[in-house]
Amino acid sequence: MNLPKKVKIVEVCGRDGFQNVKTFIKTEDKIAIIKKIIDSGFQKVEITSFVNPKRVPQMSDAKEVCKEVLKYAEGKGVDLVALVPNMKGAQLAFESNIKEINYVVSVSEKHNMANVQSTVEESLLHFEEICKEYKGALKVRLALATTFGCPFGEKIETQKIITMAERGLKAGASKILLADTVGLGNPVLVDSVLSEVKKYIPVDAISMHLHDTRGLALANTLAALNYGVTEFESAAAGLGGCPFAPGASGNVSSEDLVNMLTMMGIETNINMDELKTAIAFIRERVNAPVISHMASLFAIGI
Amino acid sequence: MNLPKKVKIVEVCGRDGFQNVKTFIKTEDKIAIIKKIIDSGFQKVEITSFVNPKRVPQMSDAKEVCKEVLKYAEGKGVDLVALVPNMKGAQLAFESNIKEINYVVSVSEKHNMANVQSTVEESLLHFEEICKEYKGALKVRLALATTFGCPFGEKIETQKIITMAERGLKAGASKILLADTVGLGNPVLVDSVLSEVKKYIPVDAISMHLHDTRGLALANTLAALNYGVTEFESAAAGLGGCPFAPGASGNVSSEDLVNMLTMMGIETNINMDELKTAIAFIRERVNAPVISHMASLFAIGI
Repeated sequence: MNLPKKVKIVEVCGRDGFQNVKTFIKTEDKIAIIKKIIDSGFQKVEITSFVNPKRVPQMSDAKEVCKEVLKYAEGKGVDLVALVPNMKGAQLAFESNIKEINYVVSVSEKHNMANVQSTVEESLLHFEEICKEYKGALKVRLALATTFGCPFGEKIETQKIITMAERGLKAGASKILLADTVGLGNPVLVDSVLSEVKKYIPVDAISMHLHDTRGLALANTLAALNYGVTEFESAAAGLGGCPFAPGASGNVSSEDLVNMLTMMGIETNINMDELKTAIAFIRERVNAPVISHMASLFAIGI
Repeated sequence: MNLPKKVKIVEVCGRDGFQNVKTFIKTEDKIAIIKKIIDSGFQKVEITSFVNPKRVPQMSDAKEVCKEVLKYAEGKGVDLVALVPNMKGAQLAFESNIKEINYVVSVSEKHNMANVQSTVEESLLHFEEICKEYKGALKVRLALATTFGCPFGEKIETQKIITMAERGLKAGASKILLADTVGLGNPVLVDSVLSEVKKYIPVDAISMHLHDTRGLALANTLAALNYGVTEFESAAAGLGGCPFAPGASGNVSSEDLVNMLTMMGIETNINMDELKTAIAFIRERVNAPVISHMASLFAIGI
């Protein structure tokens, strides 16, 4: 195995994690949880989403969350990220003093249409406009959803992933996120996609966003580590299940990912005791099942 | 990646799965579940344990389970295995017409003492006696518990694993099971242990018995597949949690393992629809949490 010595974990509980929780999480609880996540040592934290509050009521307090978390994070060396679906979102993020945004477009036409009611081409054009408008003001991440499989069965061509990634980098993206949106990836597929993508996209421009729907996120992480990928996204408590699969696992949990990397001797900069506190607080305040392996061990005092 | 085309999965739900369930599972339900497991296409199934019924009341119906399951399995091309802790167990297994037994000894002295109140040397001597006594009558598997970590913190030397495995093969073992008894293994460790063990033990004499306590079983499976290991043990519904960690994941679930291998294009001979039926029945009749990823998807009709 040819593994990196150090990995950066981008914590997305505040956005991808909270987003699918049906019961509104009190703004003060959201802020408290994100603060605990920052205290755990994550160097990049996605904290909210500037989306239409009518479509995603859970994210209606984006402005307030940003205000409080930005204040708390000052001087702590942590980058804060907000998801934006369009130019209006980018503007709101910018006005909230956010310096880094995340924009999602699906490789699958069907999934992109279901998710943002646009063709992939339209979404890419919007992305390029956002990059142009906020050049120098906002750092931009481009997430390619359904890279490892579409929930509607559309075939994903590796060439399309590469073309979209190249276009994203050309427009100014700092990272391309290869997202396994519904956990349809497997190590052989990750291996084959990365072996192609790596020919065109520098490996340090790649970040992996893996869901654990079928329990494969850590095995897929291992396959990506072998290709030299050093940035991975995860969510504390494994929050963020797919809306198509209630009760199933969502994002790979930060605690399971950190634990695996630590056991493998890979540095993550995360303090597991602090993360444990964050998870206990999530369990107390968020009305969603906490189903990660490490959280189960924490709950019985291991 | 250098992966095998075909893998054999040994189903241990009937033994390692049921063994830790506190509420007694009715004998007829045990038999019905094991029959459904056989119907799923597993070619080797561990069905019970001939242990002291006072110590493990759940296994007090070993004789009856064997009788009914042996009758059902006839002509189906499935090998049935029973665990035995000692000569008396081997005798009972033999008298029950079982043709293959599994004997467990821990690499960790502390764990072996806690588990069977013997030193490792004493356990190995008993194993050698059993092999001698039942040569030609019983096929024998030797499981090396705590190969990838001891719950009491004892350091596991790879050299000790090799010596025990060599001794096991010399005594007549058909397979050496490298067991991650409490899920303390990680892919780097699996990689390093197998790279050493492979120098002394033929890879086709190795079987992996991985627990998913920290969610690493599938990543560890991937590491072992890369070394050419083609036999893995698992339990339907992921039953069989460690007595030290109630509520935590136990054996890697057969459904998550089969799903990963199938997604990776590796043949397993398992019919997932039949396995799904077995799991639904376990959910109905066994008083234990069903926490595998695929079982969660089955439960919501995916």
